[in-house]
Parts: sequence; C-alpha cells; structure tokens
Amino acid sequence: MRILILGGDGYLGWPTAMHLSRRGHDVHLVDNYLRRRAHRENGTESLTPVAAGLGPRVGAWKEVAGRSITFVEGDLCRPDVVERLMRDFEPEAIVHYGEMPSAPYSMASRAHAVFTQYNNIAGTLNVLFAMRDLAPEAHLIKLGTMGEYGTPNIDIEEGFLEVEHHGRSDLLPYPKQPGSFYHASKVHDSVNIQLACRIWELRATDLNQGVVYGIHTEDTEADERLLTRFDYDEIFGTTLNRFCLQAVIGHPLTVYGAGGQTRGYLNLVDTIQCVELAVENPASAAEYRVFNQFTEQFTVLELAELVVRAGKEISLEVTIDHVDNPRVEKEAHYYNAANTHLLDLGLQPHHLSETLIESMFDAIRRYRDRVIPEHILPRTRWRPAQRQPAAP
Amino acid sequence: MRILILGGDGYLGWPTAMHLSRRGHDVHLVDNYLRRRAHRENGTESLTPVAAGLGPRVGAWKEVAGRSITFVEGDLCRPDVVERLMRDFEPEAIVHYGEMPSAPYSMASRAHAVFTQYNNIAGTLNVLFAMRDLAPEAHLIKLGTMGEYGTPNIDIEEGFLEVEHHGRSDLLPYPKQPGSFYHASKVHDSVNIQLACRIWELRATDLNQGVVYGIHTEDTEADERLLTRFDYDEIFGTTLNRFCLQAVIGHPLTVYGAGGQTRGYLNLVDTIQCVELAVENPASAAEYRVFNQFTEQFTVLELAELVVRAGKEISLEVTIDHVDNPRVEKEAHYYNAANTHLLDLGLQPHHLSETLIESMFDAIRRYRDRVIPEHILPRTRWRPAQRQPAAP
Repeated sequence: MRILILGGDGYLGWPTAMHLSRRGHDVHLVDNYLRRRAHRENGTESLTPVAAGLGPRVGAWKEVAGRSITFVEGDLCRPDVVERLMRDFEPEAIVHYGEMPSAPYSMASRAHAVFTQYNNIAGTLNVLFAMRDLAPEAHLIKLGTMGEYGTPNIDIEEGFLEVEHHGRSDLLPYPKQPGSFYHASKVHDSVNIQLACRIWELRATDLNQGVVYGIHTEDTEADERLLTRFDYDEIFGTTLNRFCLQAVIGHPLTVYGAGGQTRGYLNLVDTIQCVELAVENPASAAEYRVFNQFTEQFTVLELAELVVRAGKEISLEVTIDHVDNPRVEKEAHYYNAANTHLLDLGLQPHHLSETLIESMFDAIRRYRDRVIPEHILPRTRWRPAQRQPAAP
Repeated sequence: MRILILGGDGYLGWPTAMHLSRRGHDVHLVDNYLRRRAHRENGTESLTPVAAGLGPRVGAWKEVAGRSITFVEGDLCRPDVVERLMRDFEPEAIVHYGEMPSAPYSMASRAHAVFTQYNNIAGTLNVLFAMRDLAPEAHLIKLGTMGEYGTPNIDIEEGFLEVEHHGRSDLLPYPKQPGSFYHASKVHDSVNIQLACRIWELRATDLNQGVVYGIHTEDTEADERLLTRFDYDEIFGTTLNRFCLQAVIGHPLTVYGAGGQTRGYLNLVDTIQCVELAVENPASAAEYRVFNQFTEQFTVLELAELVVRAGKEISLEVTIDHVDNPRVEKEAHYYNAANTHLLDLGLQPHHLSETLIESMFDAIRRYRDRVIPEHILPRTRWRPAQRQPAAP
C-alpha cells in the first residue's frame, strides 16, 4: 500500500515508517523538522543521538533493511506542499503525526498557544482539502489524544456517546474537556475531520492516543543510525520516559502534585501496531471513527512506584518527589476509558512490567552522558505567578 | 460601565454600541473593517447605505444623541492591538462580535476555511491572554452560534448536558456538530474560552445566537447616518432578511431544498437586549456560562410562507422557489432547543409577525435601487461539483 506519513521524523513517525516499510509498504515521509528546531531554540535535545535528518535516516535504512523510504522536507501549513504530496505520491493511507504535540509548549505564552493551534488546525485543514480534491479515496489515520476527553465523572467511550435525554436518544460526539491549548487543538481537529467526512465522504480514523513510553522497537535496535528520539525535557518529555531517565541519573522522580492523575498508557511498539491495524482496516467512505489507543491505565504515582520497584531489582535507589503541580488538573478523579476497538481488530498489547522498565534503564544508561539535568524540572505553569490562588 | 465592543462596525456591533451608549455606558469600539473589505472584494454591498466608517458614525451619534463613543481601527489577530485596548481602556465588559461570521465564506475554498478558523481562533486567544494579563476581572460576552449544536435528535440544552451513563453522572459540555468550517470555528472558540475560564478564573458568557433578522433599532431609525448594515448576498445574507428583500424586488424566495431545516431566530432589537442583560448580570470568576440566544424556532419554509402572507396583505405577489440546497444538512429533523436563561434574566422577546415583516418591506423598499440581484443566489456549494453524489 502507498502510505504517506506526516511527521515522519518524529518519535513515533520514524519507527512507524521503518515498520511499515519492512512489511512491504511503499512509504513516503514529510516533516518540517519543527521538533528539532524547537529543541535547538530551547537548548535541549533527544537523549538518543538521532541521525541528522531524514536523508541519513533513510540512507541507513536502505543499508540495513534493503528497502527504500522516500521523503520530502516540507510544512503542512503550506498548501502547495500538501497538494504536491497528494498529486505525486497518490497515497492510499495517510498517517498524520505531523503536529506540535506539547501541552507545556502550548501553555508557555500567547504566541505558543496561537502557534500550536494555527499549526495543527491549518495543517490538518490543508490535508483535508487536498484529500477532497486529489485523494478522495485515501484513508486518513490521524493521531489525536486521550487528553481530548479530560477527566469526566463517567466512563469515557470511543469518540461517541449514546445519550438518552427527555425520552429521546442519539449517538453524539463524546463531550470534550481538554486541559491545555495543545489538547484543545486536537479537539478542534476532531471536529474539523468529522465535518469533512460528513460533507465530502472522506474516510478517517481518529486515534485518541494515551501517553506513549518506550525507547526501542525491533527496527531502532538494529543499528544506532536508526534510533528514534527520546525526549525527557519539561516540554517534550512524557511521564514514564522521564521517570526512567530520572531513575538512571539519580534524580528524584518528579510526580506533579498528589499523583492521583490517571491516564491511559501504551508501549511505543503498540502505537506502531495500532497504526498498522488502522491502515489494514480502513474506514468506509464518509466514516469518521475513533479508536482509544492505549493498553493500560495508571495513576502517575503508580508509575513512579513501579519505577522505584524496578530500580530496587537492580540495586538502584530511586526516590519520589511530589513537586508543585505546574498544571491545572484534578489530582484525584474517576477515570475509566474504553479501548476495545483496537483489541477487536487484533491488537496484542505489550503490558508494562518491571522487566520492560529495566530494559529501558539499560537503554537510557548507554546515553546518560547526554542528559541535560537542568531541563527536567517543569518551568511552564498553566497559571502564571500573579494568578496563582492564594495559599490556604 | 466601561464596555469594549470588538467588531463595533458590524450589523450587530454598531447598534449595540449606540444602545449601550444611550444607556449611559462608556463605550469603546474596535473593528478592522473586514466585512467592508470582503464586500468590496465580492462586488457586493449592504442594502442600507451605511456611513463610511466608524469616524463618521460616532460623529453622527455625537450630533444626534449628544454622547461620545470612542473607537480604534485594529485587527484582533494582532496581539499588540488587543493588549493596548485592555491597557488603555480598562474594560469591565468586553462584547466580542469581532469574527468572520459567514458559513458560505468558510466553505468557498481551502484558503477561506483556514482564514476563518485562524482569524476567529487567534483573535479570541489574543483576547483571552490579554484579559488574563491585563483585565482579569473583566467579563467576556462572546457571540457564538446555535449552529454549534447542529441538529441532534435530542433536546438542545444551554451549553451543558447532564449525562447519566453506566450508573454514573456528570454535567458535561453539550456535544457539538457544526455544519461548516465557520460554525466549527465557534465550537473551537467555545472550547478555548471554557478552558481559559477554568485555568485562569476568567468570567465569560457564550451567547449561542440564532439567526438574527431586522433592519432597524430605535437608534438606527433616528438618522440615516446611524443606519446599520443589511446584507442579503449569498455570503453574508441570512434567511429571513433575504426573503424580505426578495419579496420587495419581485424575486422568488429561495428556499434551500425542502425547507424543513429548523433553526432559532431573533429580532435585531432582541440581540441588543440579550447582550445588555449579559452585561448587567456578569458571570462569576472562573464561570463559563452559555445562553442560547433566540426567541422562536421556525423552519425555513414556515418563514417563506410567512413572508408570502405578509406580502398578500399589501398586495405584493410573492412566490417560493425550492432551489438545490448548496449546503450539506438535514432538510427534515427534530429540533427543540432550550432558551430560558435569558428569559430568566428578564428578556422581553419581540416575536415575529406579519406586521414586523411589512415594516421590513417598507424599510427595504426605500433602498431597493441599491439591490444587486445577481448576488442573491447561492453559488458556494458545500460539496464541489465533482464530489456531488450521483443522481438517483
């Protein structure tokens, strides 16, 4: 199948590209190196020494796997870039990772919020219009986030909710309560994509993904030039990856607030498996469907305690530090989200275990000299100082 | 009260400004003349000959009413403009009409869709951040649309829905199903505003407004230089206003499709009354509340038939033409929307009647020489020609 990957240089995009290429698909990538640029501006970097760009990456892949992946450098906010992709590559599936993915980034300032929403919304609108005009049969597989739902006091369903009200009923879009302007941008995308499917009969799968952890896939382990990025800084790092890194360098695990925040999580290799399942089982014409893409739920504190236990196994002393929560979020709440659609398609989850965490410790240890510890602690606050509520 | 009106040059903004000024408020306006520019680009114009800009308008107002309204020309997408407004004027209430308001405009092309969403989202984000930093106690009164809800098969509530699900319950944002990229932009705004209220403790009232009709208020009738605009073209015109104009010039009433589309409607004078009620009864700190702002529900065909009857009263022969629906929407559906919040605050609705329509006929007749008939019929289609479903 001809598969176009938007954001093919990213943490998930690059290993997805290798996996789908190995499976025999014809894979084409586009990326504007936004993440690499943002890191340079922040003075931060991936823990893993990733190859210098898509050129070296696909060159190494050709050498190691004997397969070709093609790519262009380009920005989805430029309609000519997106239209040329559709015209020249004629994709059958479009995997859309190509967005600014950071909640703290979006909360850092007005400019960051506007950029995040403009970048994500305009890029996705450009993709939708180009699909309408040039690839109307293609299947869009769009990465959304479980964070679109927030933390409602009822079970979270997969995109839609059957509502009974005053004796009538309807299947309606699940109410969304995003917790940052980044999460809101994904809600906006979902609304736009659903509209496009309805009026233009496009096909789309919206993958509401949980927090991804992991450092390796079968392909990234094959050669150091094939490594994917691993971010641990306050902007692009995520919970479990950051905890594992903190454990290795002897930094207390930074639990935000009480740590009762529950979220869905999944292994990097399961992200790739889920995307492949969506590719192999396309949505129908005019169908907008939503899969909740995670395999397990944990509280932040449960994850921290798991990392502490895994550390003990290898005589690594790990401590937990409850830092002031930089976010505005509930630290204790009901959380129960459905995730059966991908299991029904055949997902075989890789569950989290101490063994997995120990293997992450090993992988991280190899690059520990590259860690910049001063970028780990959260500095971006949802409420700027002058708007903090008074201490009780 | 110091009231800042964003979009103070518009159909609703200008009469709202005069009304609040007459009531003794200190009113400051901003507008970037986007609507005037879009009309010039389209070769269209307001039926009513509106004064050449805010300068002449506030000059005439000063002469007629003896009251000062101040204004600046400026674009809400420019953060410096928005910040200066907050800093210099120190608003207590901010009435936000300042958006691109047209569904057909947003569906005309990719560029129109992206512009509409960028303009509306970035402008509103700029307002929210400037409020956070410079006017945290001000009350935002934001114009949304009933079109955010779409046409669900259950009763439409005011912004929130009490949901029971698997034995648990929560009050959640009402599910949204907008029918155009413009309507979607208002959904995006609602999500962003609700988030800002929660994290920064801002105060906001989101007015989900129905379709406004009417040509005059007490103030616009006082002097021709105080007229507000009246749009009837395919881009900025709305149903009932367009029907009244068509009746006067002897054009068949253009009902889109079967005409069973039900929507909420309200008189221009009631829009102003509703905004004034919101201003006088501000939201609390951290409160995001939604009022459905309409007074009556009609199908498109009911409105057309009402115009036909009103025509008969004055021996005007009016016919109805069911034109091919340019939109993708249900032409027969359940529709029952709540609108009690504004009534509870004291709204005294001006209901639609044949007499009101006859008075609109009179007002329109005075300017009938200005009508450009070739801009009445819809040309913007939700589905471009090549994507129309095959005829049955």
